[in-house]
Amino acid sequence: MYVGGAEANVLSNLTYWATPTSLITKLPEHPLGDWVLKQLQMSQIGTSLIQRGGDRVGLYFQETGVGHRPSQVIYDRSSSSFQTLNLENLHLESISDQVSWFHTSGITPSLSSHLSDLTLALVQMMKKHHIPVSFDVNYRRKLWTLEQAKNMLFKLIPYIDYLIVNEEDLGLFFDVQMKKTNIQKGTINLEEYRLALSQMIKQFNLKGIAVTLRTSVSATHNLWQGILQFNGKFHVSSQYDIQPIVDRIGSGDAFAAGLIYGFLNNFEPQRIIDFATAAGVSKHYILGDFNHASLTWIETLIKGEANGRILR
Amino acid sequence: MYVGGAEANVLSNLTYWATPTSLITKLPEHPLGDWVLKQLQMSQIGTSLIQRGGDRVGLYFQETGVGHRPSQVIYDRSSSSFQTLNLENLHLESISDQVSWFHTSGITPSLSSHLSDLTLALVQMMKKHHIPVSFDVNYRRKLWTLEQAKNMLFKLIPYIDYLIVNEEDLGLFFDVQMKKTNIQKGTINLEEYRLALSQMIKQFNLKGIAVTLRTSVSATHNLWQGILQFNGKFHVSSQYDIQPIVDRIGSGDAFAAGLIYGFLNNFEPQRIIDFATAAGVSKHYILGDFNHASLTWIETLIKGEANGRILR
Amino acid sequence: MYVGGAEANVLSNLTYWATPTSLITKLPEHPLGDWVLKQLQMSQIGTSLIQRGGDRVGLYFQETGVGHRPSQVIYDRSSSSFQTLNLENLHLESISDQVSWFHTSGITPSLSSHLSDLTLALVQMMKKHHIPVSFDVNYRRKLWTLEQAKNMLFKLIPYIDYLIVNEEDLGLFFDVQMKKTNIQKGTINLEEYRLALSQMIKQFNLKGIAVTLRTSVSATHNLWQGILQFNGKFHVSSQYDIQPIVDRIGSGDAFAAGLIYGFLNNFEPQRIIDFATAAGVSKHYILGDFNHASLTWIETLIKGEANGRILR
Amino acid sequence: MYVGGAEANVLSNLTYWATPTSLITKLPEHPLGDWVLKQLQMSQIGTSLIQRGGDRVGLYFQETGVGHRPSQVIYDRSSSSFQTLNLENLHLESISDQVSWFHTSGITPSLSSHLSDLTLALVQMMKKHHIPVSFDVNYRRKLWTLEQAKNMLFKLIPYIDYLIVNEEDLGLFFDVQMKKTNIQKGTINLEEYRLALSQMIKQFNLKGIAVTLRTSVSATHNLWQGILQFNGKFHVSSQYDIQPIVDRIGSGDAFAAGLIYGFLNNFEPQRIIDFATAAGVSKHYILGDFNHASLTWIETLIKGEANGRILR
Amino acid sequence: MYVGGAEANVLSNLTYWATPTSLITKLPEHPLGDWVLKQLQMSQIGTSLIQRGGDRVGLYFQETGVGHRPSQVIYDRSSSSFQTLNLENLHLESISDQVSWFHTSGITPSLSSHLSDLTLALVQMMKKHHIPVSFDVNYRRKLWTLEQAKNMLFKLIPYIDYLIVNEEDLGLFFDVQMKKTNIQKGTINLEEYRLALSQMIKQFNLKGIAVTLRTSVSATHNLWQGILQFNGKFHVSSQYDIQPIVDRIGSGDAFAAGLIYGFLNNFEPQRIIDFATAAGVSKHYILGDFNHASLTWIETLIKGEANGRILR
Amino acid sequence: MYVGGAEANVLSNLTYWATPTSLITKLPEHPLGDWVLKQLQMSQIGTSLIQRGGDRVGLYFQETGVGHRPSQVIYDRSSSSFQTLNLENLHLESISDQVSWFHTSGITPSLSSHLSDLTLALVQMMKKHHIPVSFDVNYRRKLWTLEQAKNMLFKLIPYIDYLIVNEEDLGLFFDVQMKKTNIQKGTINLEEYRLALSQMIKQFNLKGIAVTLRTSVSATHNLWQGILQFNGKFHVSSQYDIQPIVDRIGSGDAFAAGLIYGFLNNFEPQRIIDFATAAGVSKHYILGDFNHASLTWIETLIKGEANGRILR
Repeated sequence: MYVGGAEANVLSNLTYWATPTSLITKLPEHPLGDWVLKQLQMSQIGTSLIQRGGDRVGLYFQETGVGHRPSQVIYDRSSSSFQTLNLENLHLESISDQVSWFHTSGITPSLSSHLSDLTLALVQMMKKHHIPVSFDVNYRRKLWTLEQAKNMLFKLIPYIDYLIVNEEDLGLFFDVQMKKTNIQKGTINLEEYRLALSQMIKQFNLKGIAVTLRTSVSATHNLWQGILQFNGKFHVSSQYDIQPIVDRIGSGDAFAAGLIYGFLNNFEPQRIIDFATAAGVSKHYILGDFNHASLTWIETLIKGEANGRILR
Repeated sequence: MYVGGAEANVLSNLTYWATPTSLITKLPEHPLGDWVLKQLQMSQIGTSLIQRGGDRVGLYFQETGVGHRPSQVIYDRSSSSFQTLNLENLHLESISDQVSWFHTSGITPSLSSHLSDLTLALVQMMKKHHIPVSFDVNYRRKLWTLEQAKNMLFKLIPYIDYLIVNEEDLGLFFDVQMKKTNIQKGTINLEEYRLALSQMIKQFNLKGIAVTLRTSVSATHNLWQGILQFNGKFHVSSQYDIQPIVDRIGSGDAFAAGLIYGFLNNFEPQRIIDFATAAGVSKHYILGDFNHASLTWIETLIKGEANGRILR
Repeated sequence: MYVGGAEANVLSNLTYWATPTSLITKLPEHPLGDWVLKQLQMSQIGTSLIQRGGDRVGLYFQETGVGHRPSQVIYDRSSSSFQTLNLENLHLESISDQVSWFHTSGITPSLSSHLSDLTLALVQMMKKHHIPVSFDVNYRRKLWTLEQAKNMLFKLIPYIDYLIVNEEDLGLFFDVQMKKTNIQKGTINLEEYRLALSQMIKQFNLKGIAVTLRTSVSATHNLWQGILQFNGKFHVSSQYDIQPIVDRIGSGDAFAAGLIYGFLNNFEPQRIIDFATAAGVSKHYILGDFNHASLTWIETLIKGEANGRILR
Repeated sequence: MYVGGAEANVLSNLTYWATPTSLITKLPEHPLGDWVLKQLQMSQIGTSLIQRGGDRVGLYFQETGVGHRPSQVIYDRSSSSFQTLNLENLHLESISDQVSWFHTSGITPSLSSHLSDLTLALVQMMKKHHIPVSFDVNYRRKLWTLEQAKNMLFKLIPYIDYLIVNEEDLGLFFDVQMKKTNIQKGTINLEEYRLALSQMIKQFNLKGIAVTLRTSVSATHNLWQGILQFNGKFHVSSQYDIQPIVDRIGSGDAFAAGLIYGFLNNFEPQRIIDFATAAGVSKHYILGDFNHASLTWIETLIKGEANGRILR
Repeated sequence: MYVGGAEANVLSNLTYWATPTSLITKLPEHPLGDWVLKQLQMSQIGTSLIQRGGDRVGLYFQETGVGHRPSQVIYDRSSSSFQTLNLENLHLESISDQVSWFHTSGITPSLSSHLSDLTLALVQMMKKHHIPVSFDVNYRRKLWTLEQAKNMLFKLIPYIDYLIVNEEDLGLFFDVQMKKTNIQKGTINLEEYRLALSQMIKQFNLKGIAVTLRTSVSATHNLWQGILQFNGKFHVSSQYDIQPIVDRIGSGDAFAAGLIYGFLNNFEPQRIIDFATAAGVSKHYILGDFNHASLTWIETLIKGEANGRILR
Repeated sequence: MYVGGAEANVLSNLTYWATPTSLITKLPEHPLGDWVLKQLQMSQIGTSLIQRGGDRVGLYFQETGVGHRPSQVIYDRSSSSFQTLNLENLHLESISDQVSWFHTSGITPSLSSHLSDLTLALVQMMKKHHIPVSFDVNYRRKLWTLEQAKNMLFKLIPYIDYLIVNEEDLGLFFDVQMKKTNIQKGTINLEEYRLALSQMIKQFNLKGIAVTLRTSVSATHNLWQGILQFNGKFHVSSQYDIQPIVDRIGSGDAFAAGLIYGFLNNFEPQRIIDFATAAGVSKHYILGDFNHASLTWIETLIKGEANGRILR
């Protein structure tokens, strides 16, 4: 039993790298809610904005795959306390100078129309206060239809600065068709991606787009690479051959955290995508939703020296 | 501690796919015998034909290999209750219309001359009642000599409809020499197999022969493929690259179960071998002798879509 | 919690292969010291030369890596009882006819200047009694500087008969530069090694040098090969593709044990390096510092038959 | 992770004692719902009346206590598929001759007003078909208020034949005040109970009432006894000193199952309460909600011979 | 592997009850030191006063007893980083208004003469700044002799406000002989204790003395009671019968934390000793050195309601 | 999976106390036989008299009880290699001066008539060479009938010096009826035992008889005491209240080992029975068939100081 969830996962990475964070959520007032709160505090995630109330903690069940056996996720998030979240105790005007980034993902608005409205209200508030907003599309077909997810995305996109997508989302949400690329067969034409991303940047008036490209050889063997279009330039990380995968759930969240960390620390754009990709890679070797990959290890991964020799 | 055994493994697959089955065996009347019976019932295997009596449950010990370290099996099956099985309570005439298939393997007759006689009697009874008989050669050199196994096989073969062999058995039992094939090096000439199988079909008046071809790269990495000669035609499945293997014991039994399931459901021959091979592949990822691979997952394996992406 | 340590690991292999051994060390007189002694006795390692006294058992902590995540070792060996070892109860003159080999490694002298002096005194005593001496360079940068290690090695080398090094030590200690070899990329030019080793043999008046060559693809995937220069000839083992690695700590010690076993049993030089390399390979598949690979399995590895088929 | 629930627990006992059963519930059509169904089938519980549909499986979380540390249960059962159960596929008229007993508990109506209505409809249907009905009060203050539970109980009681309560329920629901009994201090005046139960039998026109009396010394040490008023007579079991308790969840359900088993098999009333109490005792030593205590063991408990000597 | 140590254990309790704390210690700058720091942070213990440097983390090994088999502790604390602690970065003058209590124990000065000096310096500093000081005698005969411990205690005692001792320490350190008390046989004459404590208060000019009285029936069964002499009055808690003990290491530290919590929150003296004793009792049921007993549970223990009934 | 067996258990104790031993048995030549041999060697039990051959290792399955749930043992020892043991390689004449004691138990002759004959031959050989013989009646009703066991015992008894029995055996084998003793209720009249034992000593010309008296309160709570009639005097140990029992299998063997150790070391008779009883008590707290209780701990148990206080 682990505490997880896309946004909390992102924060767990940032706090692990000594970046102060604060999670906006709602937890029931019973021992299980207390336990989740305690786990968040133990991960040093800021909990001062967390509301208490409602009946249940949203759950998901996962089975880790191996080889040809895929991982499975079942969502059990209906009627959770999170669904009754409101913005009453969020006085952004009084704390806006302490906030330097806002991140959310497509999972939150998928959970109910109330949370859709609330997500929209939040990104609008952030925009108003000039706080950079990143959004990870994170499309889950077990939570809502593509139609619903698209409608929501296009409502949100005017307020988004940095968009994070994976190889599938480009086709599903933006009708980007790659002719020379077949990711599942391992063929990636980066030029196609460069063109598509620079086009999207213009169309939606974004500051940056980051994409993760995963070739899934088997449940325990993936190839993974990150790309970033930012400031008119296209940046590509190394491609990592990841084997054996210990637990890939949360790797996209670690990637998002890496991006945010890079931007907050004013890294060079190439270093941002290198850092984010290596952060995502590291998560594949760590069990549980929360990542605890040190900055030192990530540096080693970036330098390509992580060939597994014993450090002694 | 798991319940297993070639024939029981086959039934565990079939019952998992909602096919009613019944196991013919004998178990001692003590708590360990009760426990085995309970495990069989929990797997929904039919137990109405199981006799009680004798002193011990046959055992085997296995150590799962890894990489260059092979798996080991030690048999401890002497003096087991199974050896005292008789056919007294098997009134086939009265139930023959409920029986649509009979399967056994070379392990049963290897255990004693009494069980050899009994196996022969059983297949003869089945033949008389026009019940299709499948036989998996399953040669184990720790149980009997090749000479003994051959003698038995050629006594049984007139009553066998569907023969199941692996890549080694063809050479050992039928003197089939492949000149252009070196399975351990990964070279497989399918034409050689086609010729050999069609020749065997004629010689032994069989309805079908299915062969599993395993290239063992290491204890945790195998290539695997199935072929079927049936109704004058030769059918070949995809070759699967299986890595990492969790537990390959029972994969041949899952293959046999897949074949029987295909024939019972009147699949097209190509689909039969595709289904059987995928069923066998699935077992490599499941711990314990009994398989519990769903029909849905097997379909995914057949379509080649089982690349391990998370289902969420 | 396992008992380990370079020299003890070597002995654990030799005793497993029915070769009598005796460990020289010192253990505190408290329950943890007793436990270590009991573990050594259970491994059949001779303990008659072990002293008791001092305060603590030297420790190290290790975390096993996976894929891009390297293994980590932290040493906690300061102030251990071993550091207070003396040679008072070692009356070599009275037992020298029972001793046919002496082995030590660079870890012992690294622990303190007292142990450096003691190591030197020991190899000198062995030389005086015509007992063959093998030395495994085993350089650990967390224990001492390269400078210190070099100084010590060149003090010891006049008394060493058989030197054991890995691919890194050659460059670090002997300034051997390989131009056509890039082990981390998997390119090995054996001719370069042959020249270097025959040159070293002459320069330091050694009887033999053995080298292990490791290409680390990832923490769980290595290539490994052994070479031996002895009696004017150069001998090369097969290269093993080791995947998945279960625990590689102690593989170098198993290699050293294999060499000693080969020399003690008067194997042909080619067979010595084959045996030592296979012994080292076997350790990668066994958890814990002590190896328990049988002679039979090592033979199978030498013959290249260890492809992981089930033995049944 | 175990499958449990008051009514399912009762059935798991009865099926273990070879009594055919059938569970009325509803499970979602996703892998978790499938898994629960499979677990029920593996316990041989009849599943033909189970509906599929809805979104989630009701959950509860429990922490097992020790000594002064109490066990904890958190219910997470809102919006479960069970709440959408209807009686559409229950054609009682056509199967009533196959049904010899109906059992339910206070947990079912506590879950929603829909399930309250449905429970009432069910017991009325059973009454109409002359099927004996047992009801276990099973009051859980975390699920509903005492007021609500009382209202429901008094609606149901005209249709109940056999009522099962614990030492607390008598006071809470029926205002029975014991003057000479202080169960928590271990003082039990059985005469007080005899009077109270015979009075209740008359007042509510019941066939029988069974009560469990638990003195909780600590979370791992309880005293336990059962009493039964039936056919004008009062029957008392032995008092068991249960220590150490492995898992007491489900012991009340095992008691209920024991009662039903006794009535179905026409045991003498004294034997019924002896059997039910011993069945309940056995559950304290078995982990998980489902009981698997054999009839043989229960007999030993009844005879007072279960002093834990080894059977060999 | 757990993080522990008398003073850290005390803080873990206080932080769990939402009291801000800060630990003064020193940890090496290597991954094991980092891990300990992370564990302290996860327990919310203040780490701003922790120094980094030195070579090793002090260790102890413990084996948990059962019945007649006692628990064992082996200390391995020599040469630890803690031994090189200095007070350079502790600017008490600038933070003294934020400090409302200082606690330490006899384990710290036992570790070296440097730490003895430093402990004395610290309590003197606290006295100077009018910060209350509590001291737990915590005598460990494996760390120093009684003679040494006594000398140190009498140097420290002029600066101590609240002294914490156990039943043995009174005799060993203060020559208090109880004539009517035999704790190991379970006979406790409280009047004897009242006299002894009021005498000690006067002699050493203390504000309060708290004593824990443990009767050890077996390793898994103890009786436990706390007494407190404060402000001229003698207060006694309930005696708890604790069985089965899960892990008693750290129970004395939980008692000390309870006392401090009581004084900081201005509890009535009787409530202070009740709270401290119940806090200590709770630790016996929790594995690992750090306690995580909630205030709610401790209240239940004080009220004597913790009889282990399930909360549901 | 543990190695055990009455005689091997006795030796494991003696070797743990540094007494050289040698086991007479036979093991098959396959990996499981090798594993057992290795386990015996690791326990330092002498293996030079062990024969190899035959097909299987005798097995037994055990389930550890708790509270009212008894432990269960199922024997699966038919056709084991041990049954084919012969005395060919036992040249007692040449080693008789190295043998100072011979011990066996009723389990060996129970396994087959061949082993009955062999047991008789062995004790006769020992008698001839003036080697003391101890025999533990160890009656197991699942292995043979009381009739058979009695016949064998009375054939062996002329050659037995020291007889070991438990509270049941006295009645079953020697028709000793205790009128004032009811062990299961905890009433033991020692005078009755004294008379019975001194009578038996005379009748069978024994040197000594030792008896273990077990009151089984529950599977995890026993009272245990040992008595010894020797040299015309009656000696009684303390009665131990053992709770919670971890694993009592092998406690009788530890008692036998304690007796032998006492006689071999010329302890006073009172000390012999004290030592043997404490050795047996210690085994109740250790998992697995082999005991590893140190002499120091046993001393503490004898002195009655083993009240489970932490040693630190």
